Amino acid sequence: MHQTRVTVAEGVLDANQTIAAANRADFDRAGVKVVNLMSAPGAGKTSLLERALAETGEVRVGVLEGDVRGSLDADRLSQLHIPVVQINTDPAFGGECHLDANMVRSAIPQIPLEEIDLLVIENVGNLVCPAEFRVGEDRRWMISSVTEGEDKPLKYPLMFRSCELVVLNKIDLLPHTDFSEELFLANLEKVNPGAETFRTSARTGEGIDAWRRRLLDLAPAAGRD
Amino acid sequence: MHQTRVTVAEGVLDANQTIAAANRADFDRAGVKVVNLMSAPGAGKTSLLERALAETGEVRVGVLEGDVRGSLDADRLSQLHIPVVQINTDPAFGGECHLDANMVRSAIPQIPLEEIDLLVIENVGNLVCPAEFRVGEDRRWMISSVTEGEDKPLKYPLMFRSCELVVLNKIDLLPHTDFSEELFLANLEKVNPGAETFRTSARTGEGIDAWRRRLLDLAPAAGRD
Repeated sequence: MHQTRVTVAEGVLDANQTIAAANRADFDRAGVKVVNLMSAPGAGKTSLLERALAETGEVRVGVLEGDVRGSLDADRLSQLHIPVVQINTDPAFGGECHLDANMVRSAIPQIPLEEIDLLVIENVGNLVCPAEFRVGEDRRWMISSVTEGEDKPLKYPLMFRSCELVVLNKIDLLPHTDFSEELFLANLEKVNPGAETFRTSARTGEGIDAWRRRLLDLAPAAGRD
Repeated sequence: MHQTRVTVAEGVLDANQTIAAANRADFDRAGVKVVNLMSAPGAGKTSLLERALAETGEVRVGVLEGDVRGSLDADRLSQLHIPVVQINTDPAFGGECHLDANMVRSAIPQIPLEEIDLLVIENVGNLVCPAEFRVGEDRRWMISSVTEGEDKPLKYPLMFRSCELVVLNKIDLLPHTDFSEELFLANLEKVNPGAETFRTSARTGEGIDAWRRRLLDLAPAAGRD
């Protein structure tokens, strides 16, 4: 007779966490750093990437585009002659309002991981659910635009809290709105004290260089040898 | 012995539809017309309502505010001295990114239905899931702002298709953006041919009167006797 041993598995991960960890392992093995970029619809994720990724020096960047439907953003970014892979959450995943780890996993075979140093995942435009699903990323960054108002950190605290870096975009419109940058930063500080912030205008290019440097510096040094 | 008869229930509704129908019956019984107002975060739903509901003549209007967290918008609208009820999807419903019929049902006891003619439900800011959940409304309207870009109808087709009226807000910013109104309307026409449109600026007040009339005209004539 053999003794029966029951091992209690502690810290069991939910399915999304398990798959996110598998994605992360694949990215790490390939030496690719991954940024999960989130925002409300129309905050300017694609426009900002168009500007920032137009000059990436020796860092090889790829983009994974998440949209409910269509490939409008992927088409725009593919003009930059970088690898762009599109995930549609509508036909393939039932119209989900966010990317999850399994969707990203399904796209990994299409991403040339050995040929890039940095992968930017452009999530579905939404300030709620994307924050709840890790996808295997190293960094979670978000974009908020001045036209959305100063109250957004207080109304969508999980999103603003889950990101270590917040880009305030569309600053070219500041003179034409009632937006108070001071109030926005105070609200952000309430939900995410010490969050790193950048100010950009994807339209005029203001602030893009600084954000680009911050983004490209994520790539492993090997990518710039 | 009695004969057994089996009745096959056809057209079985899912739980959300069942509860939405119950809500609708309650609203109808009280003679209240209901608009489900949807948009991306920061498109200007609350600002537009602040302007429009400042003068409602003899139409008695109430607002049901849906937010993930907080009562910032409800607090703003309560300045108008109209009944405002807040639903938070976070503590009560697990951080949902949309209102569903059951959340609205849970709020109905707090809404003075006998004292209003028109109820505006301000949904959670999101262009995906709110379109998938009827809540018992008579009308589904949405707001899109010029700073979100012309491509939004193509990227979020279910939302734009599920609404019979689309307000294009923040038109005061048109001179300061590259937004093409013609392209936006062409994209809207592709996903929702013949959709009714309004142009507004909650900031300058342009177009508010026309939209206010359209909104108040929904109320049953009894409310204006």
